[in-house]
Amino acid sequence: MEDIPVSELALTPKRGGPKNLPIAEVLVDDEDSEAMQAQRDKPKLVILGTGWGSVALLKTLNPGDYHVTVVSPVNYFLFTPMLPSATVGTLSLKSLVEPVRRIVHRLRGHFLKAEAEDVDFSSKLVEVSQVDASGKRQHFYLPYDKLVIAVGSTSNSHGVKGLENCHMLKTIDDARKIKNKVTDNMELACLPTTSDEERKRLLSFVICGGGPTGVEFAAELYDLLNEDLRKNFPKILRNEISVHVIQSRSHILNTYDEALSKYAESRFAHDSVEVLTNSRVKEVRPDKILFTQQEDGKTVTKEIPMGFCLWSTGVSQTTFAQKLAKKLEAQNNKHALETDTHLRLIGAPLGDVYAIGDCATVQNNIADHMVTFLRTIAWEKGKDPQKVHLTFSEWRGVAERVKKRFPQAANHLRRLDRLFQEYDRDHSGTLDFDELHELLMQIDSKLTSLPATAQRANQQGEYLGRKFNHIAKALPGMRANEVDYGDLDEAVYKAFSYKHLGSLAYIGNAAIFDFNGLNFGGGLLAVDGLDEEGVFR
Amino acid sequence: MEDIPVSELALTPKRGGPKNLPIAEVLVDDEDSEAMQAQRDKPKLVILGTGWGSVALLKTLNPGDYHVTVVSPVNYFLFTPMLPSATVGTLSLKSLVEPVRRIVHRLRGHFLKAEAEDVDFSSKLVEVSQVDASGKRQHFYLPYDKLVIAVGSTSNSHGVKGLENCHMLKTIDDARKIKNKVTDNMELACLPTTSDEERKRLLSFVICGGGPTGVEFAAELYDLLNEDLRKNFPKILRNEISVHVIQSRSHILNTYDEALSKYAESRFAHDSVEVLTNSRVKEVRPDKILFTQQEDGKTVTKEIPMGFCLWSTGVSQTTFAQKLAKKLEAQNNKHALETDTHLRLIGAPLGDVYAIGDCATVQNNIADHMVTFLRTIAWEKGKDPQKVHLTFSEWRGVAERVKKRFPQAANHLRRLDRLFQEYDRDHSGTLDFDELHELLMQIDSKLTSLPATAQRANQQGEYLGRKFNHIAKALPGMRANEVDYGDLDEAVYKAFSYKHLGSLAYIGNAAIFDFNGLNFGGGLLAVDGLDEEGVFR
Ligand SMILES: Cc1cc2nc3c(=O)[nH]c(=O)nc-3n(C[C@H](O)[C@H](O)[C@H](O)COP(=O)(O)OP(=O)(O)OC[C@H]3O[C@@H](n4cnc5c(N)ncnc54)[C@H](O)[C@@H]3O)c2cc1C
Ligand SMILES: Cc1cc2nc3c(=O)[nH]c(=O)nc-3n(C[C@H](O)[C@H](O)[C@H](O)COP(=O)(O)OP(=O)(O)OC[C@H]3O[C@@H](n4cnc5c(N)ncnc54)[C@H](O)[C@@H]3O)c2cc1C
Repeated sequence: MEDIPVSELALTPKRGGPKNLPIAEVLVDDEDSEAMQAQRDKPKLVILGTGWGSVALLKTLNPGDYHVTVVSPVNYFLFTPMLPSATVGTLSLKSLVEPVRRIVHRLRGHFLKAEAEDVDFSSKLVEVSQVDASGKRQHFYLPYDKLVIAVGSTSNSHGVKGLENCHMLKTIDDARKIKNKVTDNMELACLPTTSDEERKRLLSFVICGGGPTGVEFAAELYDLLNEDLRKNFPKILRNEISVHVIQSRSHILNTYDEALSKYAESRFAHDSVEVLTNSRVKEVRPDKILFTQQEDGKTVTKEIPMGFCLWSTGVSQTTFAQKLAKKLEAQNNKHALETDTHLRLIGAPLGDVYAIGDCATVQNNIADHMVTFLRTIAWEKGKDPQKVHLTFSEWRGVAERVKKRFPQAANHLRRLDRLFQEYDRDHSGTLDFDELHELLMQIDSKLTSLPATAQRANQQGEYLGRKFNHIAKALPGMRANEVDYGDLDEAVYKAFSYKHLGSLAYIGNAAIFDFNGLNFGGGLLAVDGLDEEGVFR
Repeated sequence: MEDIPVSELALTPKRGGPKNLPIAEVLVDDEDSEAMQAQRDKPKLVILGTGWGSVALLKTLNPGDYHVTVVSPVNYFLFTPMLPSATVGTLSLKSLVEPVRRIVHRLRGHFLKAEAEDVDFSSKLVEVSQVDASGKRQHFYLPYDKLVIAVGSTSNSHGVKGLENCHMLKTIDDARKIKNKVTDNMELACLPTTSDEERKRLLSFVICGGGPTGVEFAAELYDLLNEDLRKNFPKILRNEISVHVIQSRSHILNTYDEALSKYAESRFAHDSVEVLTNSRVKEVRPDKILFTQQEDGKTVTKEIPMGFCLWSTGVSQTTFAQKLAKKLEAQNNKHALETDTHLRLIGAPLGDVYAIGDCATVQNNIADHMVTFLRTIAWEKGKDPQKVHLTFSEWRGVAERVKKRFPQAANHLRRLDRLFQEYDRDHSGTLDFDELHELLMQIDSKLTSLPATAQRANQQGEYLGRKFNHIAKALPGMRANEVDYGDLDEAVYKAFSYKHLGSLAYIGNAAIFDFNGLNFGGGLLAVDGLDEEGVFR
């Protein structure tokens, strides 16, 4: 065996930082190859999470530019869109995962299977922890020059009691547990010691949440129970099986196009999957679920005996993200970490920290920035903001600036002439302060926050990857000219702009595609695994 | 949904039997199809277990002859020979399993996921139990006309303390746990909070038992740790990894041909897998293993710090089989259920109960039957046994009878002329009582008990399948002639005879094949999954 050079500092890290924890300045594999040695003095890029956002970033980065370290409690990337169907179907769960070390390997980067606990923004340290072999949680610091937070989201409990009686569907382990539970119930239902009432309960499958995951799962479950299993299980099971979807809104798939939502509902009606809309889950007990409905203005509590319950009622912030949001005064969104349109975490030192994917939201409220905008314009014209009058060509300049800063607004700033005419109410040929204000407020109100999808996380990850590649190239020159490091983002790269490529929902064997309003259903769609760019649904 | 006819008796079974439990006379799917209805009055064949023996039987039986019910706590068939390599390798675990319901379906049989607890031989009831959804164990009786016991074996603890700190390798769940543990240890070894000493411990893998499973696992683990993982994990791990095999005998693979055992040892020596022979494990602690060795006539206790321990030191009887053996006075083997050469459980009513595979052993001691043999011969000749003298042609007749009864002896009864000459010490031209006795004792001593292998279980399952097919054909005629049912086996079919088709051991990427003494090693062997007959190793 060859002798391996490992720095003493990697084997016994020095302590420091606010909590005097070991600081992982050097890692045990920093000298494993020439490529790794060459990276020791590159900017330290720390990436938290191994989901859609992180992996897209990792796959876009050029090797050699950064000293990359990925931290996540999970050492595989999971192709979530196929998870609901693989959970109950025949597709192997293993085919949905990709080992993260293999992905990190391309960059000669580092992976630490551990959890981020906190960030000290001033000393640029992430506090990381992991349970050791004896069950004790060990904490240490990981220093960064750039930090990317892509820790995703957790299930939203909506404060409901008894969620320990539910299954969640997020990891491969969750999927395996669900798979086992479904077949266990089927097997128990076949035993002579199982009463008819108990059999019906065991075979009553309840899905809380009528979003895409819940709907896809219900449809797949229905198919499984009715097609695949009917050959091999006693027929009585088929007669006693029931699938119920509990949805708080008036329709399932309510964030999708209406036609799509209707299609799903009619398909379920045909398959006798019960859809309970306008229903709020109150409590989940081991053997039944309690929910309320409005009847004649009164709240009535109803119940369904059940043998299996999936909880998929939307997502909420991880404790880690919550902790960071609390730390930074500038953060005031309850649901996600706010970033600017360069995906930089608002409130953290500029250019140090980024947040992408489900855990993040891009601040797109032009309204908040209105004053600054108008003030800048006024200042340029040497006038009191209230007295500014914009000509059409000045308006075009303003619109360009708005678009650059808020790429999501671009769609609404296409027909500048028409907008100008429409809002120039007094037909003065200029927009005055009030008119401009109204115009921008209108656009602002049309901008919605980005969806919590793989598609968005992927786009944000790729965006950061491309930008970091640019920054790495620009850095030496900037340093030579003593340009401040934090301003680089805007200098070298455009703001992030989300492109909606359509959503796809699976309702049993039929795929329904919602492509910017144009939607069509039916037919079979094959997704043949993972390609480098990820396949979207 | 169509209306499904289910007998009331299936929904609420009558109680009875020695413990007054529900008796599953009729099952919920007995009327599911015409084929199933036609089987209601066929002899009830109950098969315990879903391993090699049962599945071979199920795959050999003709559909329609019996009302078949399979009982097992596990609803899949597991291809055990590939388990050690799939556990640590890249082969998917899922590819090693076959759902039992699919196999049972061919026969329009029934499957109950439950455990056999006891058998009441006089009322022909198997007591079966399963834990219900509320965690309570529910018991019931399953009536049989024919019962096949194929419950396999459990790990042998050899009375060693601390086995809860070991992994076993028997089920797909075991394999998954091992897989997770190995990677968890590798991941922990990369963290900056892990000391060098702890890293060495985490990466010390101990295998107790130098039989085929232990050796194959050690070889696969070595390959995994050294080939597959080295690309993606820090190099320091490779330097600190160690694999140790602890074997009580003087060689590993000691039941195989010597050349094979030597090959494995030299391969391990080259790979620096430590082989500790003549070593007995004393105790397994969470972080180390204690074992003893003989040094200068004294017993010395040694220890190895370890992060993972596999316990594979051979097999022992399940509690269920032990319970049955205790019940039947005629059973006096401590390690397995004894059957006659028709695989009928000795002591149970003739033709009712069979035992095959790892849980069973075929009584092959001719010596025990000597007196009966000789008495029969003497009686045929109208003489006192002590005074019998056999001519060569009479000896041929006796030899034929011995072969029929003990097919395993056939190999040793090939050259009848030579045997006759050799044992006719007084050259009288006849064998007298003492000479015959000596001859048969010699043969008896050469017969060994059958190996606990997939190959044997498979052959026994197929044998029973073929025999049951014959019995089903013969039954109507026999019944018409009022022939006693229990004698059918010998009347319609030959005794079981084991054919050793060679053993195969995997040492890393090399397969070593031991084919009746002729053995060769090296090269790669591809096993392309399961075929109908099973692929042997
Ligand atoms: C069952 C299911 C089906 C879905 N189907 C679709 C679909 O069809 N189409 C679609 O567009 N989207 C779908 N989604 C949503 C999509 O998966 C998410 O929007 C996407 O995964 C978000 O990517 P992300 O990188 O932000 O987070 P994730 O992919 O969730 O990754 C977060 C990562 O952070 C890690 N992490 C968590 N906490 C910490 C911590 N403290 N420190 C370090 N790491 C941490 C996690 O282990 C994980 O690796 C589905 C989601 C689920 C659960
Ligand atoms: C890791 C491993 C590797 C092996 N490699 C090889 C090899 O390479 N070559 C080879 O020839 N052999 C190999 N073997 C041995 C081989 O698997 C066994 O000899 C074979 O499985 C025996 O078959 P069986 O039908 O007797 O028992 P099993 O296959 O063990 O099946 C027993 C069945 O009975 C069920 N059962 C247990 N208790 C009860 C109960 N109370 N009631 C009802 N059902 C019950 C079990 O769940 C199981 O389904 C290996 C074994 C292991 C564990």
